[in-house]
Amino acid sequence: MELGVGIAKIRKYATSESGDTVEVVERPKGGLSVVLADGQSSGRGAKWISTMVVRKVITLLAEGVRDGAAARAASDSLFTERGGKVSSTLNILSADNQTKTLVITRNNPAPALVANNEDIISLGEKSLPIGINRGTRPVINEVGLELGLTTVVYSDGIDHAGSRFGDSMDVQTCLVALLENEDPSPQFIADSLLLNALNLDRGRPSDDISVVVLRVMNRGEDEVRRMTVRLPLDLR
Amino acid sequence: MELGVGIAKIRKYATSESGDTVEVVERPKGGLSVVLADGQSSGRGAKWISTMVVRKVITLLAEGVRDGAAARAASDSLFTERGGKVSSTLNILSADNQTKTLVITRNNPAPALVANNEDIISLGEKSLPIGINRGTRPVINEVGLELGLTTVVYSDGIDHAGSRFGDSMDVQTCLVALLENEDPSPQFIADSLLLNALNLDRGRPSDDISVVVLRVMNRGEDEVRRMTVRLPLDLR
Repeated sequence: MELGVGIAKIRKYATSESGDTVEVVERPKGGLSVVLADGQSSGRGAKWISTMVVRKVITLLAEGVRDGAAARAASDSLFTERGGKVSSTLNILSADNQTKTLVITRNNPAPALVANNEDIISLGEKSLPIGINRGTRPVINEVGLELGLTTVVYSDGIDHAGSRFGDSMDVQTCLVALLENEDPSPQFIADSLLLNALNLDRGRPSDDISVVVLRVMNRGEDEVRRMTVRLPLDLR
Repeated sequence: MELGVGIAKIRKYATSESGDTVEVVERPKGGLSVVLADGQSSGRGAKWISTMVVRKVITLLAEGVRDGAAARAASDSLFTERGGKVSSTLNILSADNQTKTLVITRNNPAPALVANNEDIISLGEKSLPIGINRGTRPVINEVGLELGLTTVVYSDGIDHAGSRFGDSMDVQTCLVALLENEDPSPQFIADSLLLNALNLDRGRPSDDISVVVLRVMNRGEDEVRRMTVRLPLDLR
């Protein structure tokens, strides 16, 4: 079997950089973690915050610190550094080879979606961004890794998509439709959800948007690990 | 235009984990860096070393430290920590959006290949692994980012491929052949080079093998950044 991750990101229209940061890190005992942070506001300041949060979390994860403790440490760091004036959302998706589970850690009002084939649940228990209060705790869910498991987390650009035009995006309904395709790849799902949001924003995203999809697939006949990155390049 | 990175990795046959570590990190002023380290020997000890080296480098890069300084810092750290008894190779590929250049940093006897379309040069100036001597310096080359630029770096599993059977791999010749395809993706090039090495090893790699390919392509009509990760998953 194969574990696949697809990530698609776009920055707010007419800003120089995205305030969202997503990084993938190997776990010391096998498996991987994907860390997504969305820094308050947009542009350079937001990028600084989200980079700081993601760096903190992946450094701790690489040392073997558990996801929940890493999230609390990032929250305390941001709270201390910025005196509770700056917030960031934080999501950690960790696929652990030893426990054969997926751990979903949220400091994000937006839900995480978990689908077992076409049966979808929304993990929407109340969850606060980090950095505003002392001692903010993440909401943590753990599910067994099994064939067809699909998890989606995203930054709030998805929730804002289309709001200028009185529209909104029902991510769960979109995901149901996407999973009706023949064995969709996580990158296809991430790209499709992002495209849907972009269309609602008439091609000009009103906020930074990031979508992370993790999926267990019946592929991978070989023992090769692969990573592909593609980003726009302006050489003018 | 689009900047693409393709990474393919496999561990030595009959070992539990690869001693190679590859990570991709966003650069603070735009662009990205790919960091590859191959820790001495194989298995868990090698993994610990390569993880430590890559962590050190990406933490410094994320703070805005220049590639050469980050490589020297990683070398000094490893030398201090292990008393000069443990070595690691290190490669950094950095595509910088500001300078519009690709910086190739090597502490690795294996060369880096740079192709402008089908015209290939091998950057093979003598370069030592880090960790053995105090003050080891990397070899650094810088080339302009332009359409068709393709760069390949790899761990020494490629150089050892087939040696048990009296065979060896000519990476440059393989790359020439691969670039004759119609606009090959970096992932296709990385997968093909790894497959070639695997075949020379009769399907049982005699060492950890990692291949990193970076390529500037004429694609990317949108402003979306994408990252895809695929890894084998054993749920039994």
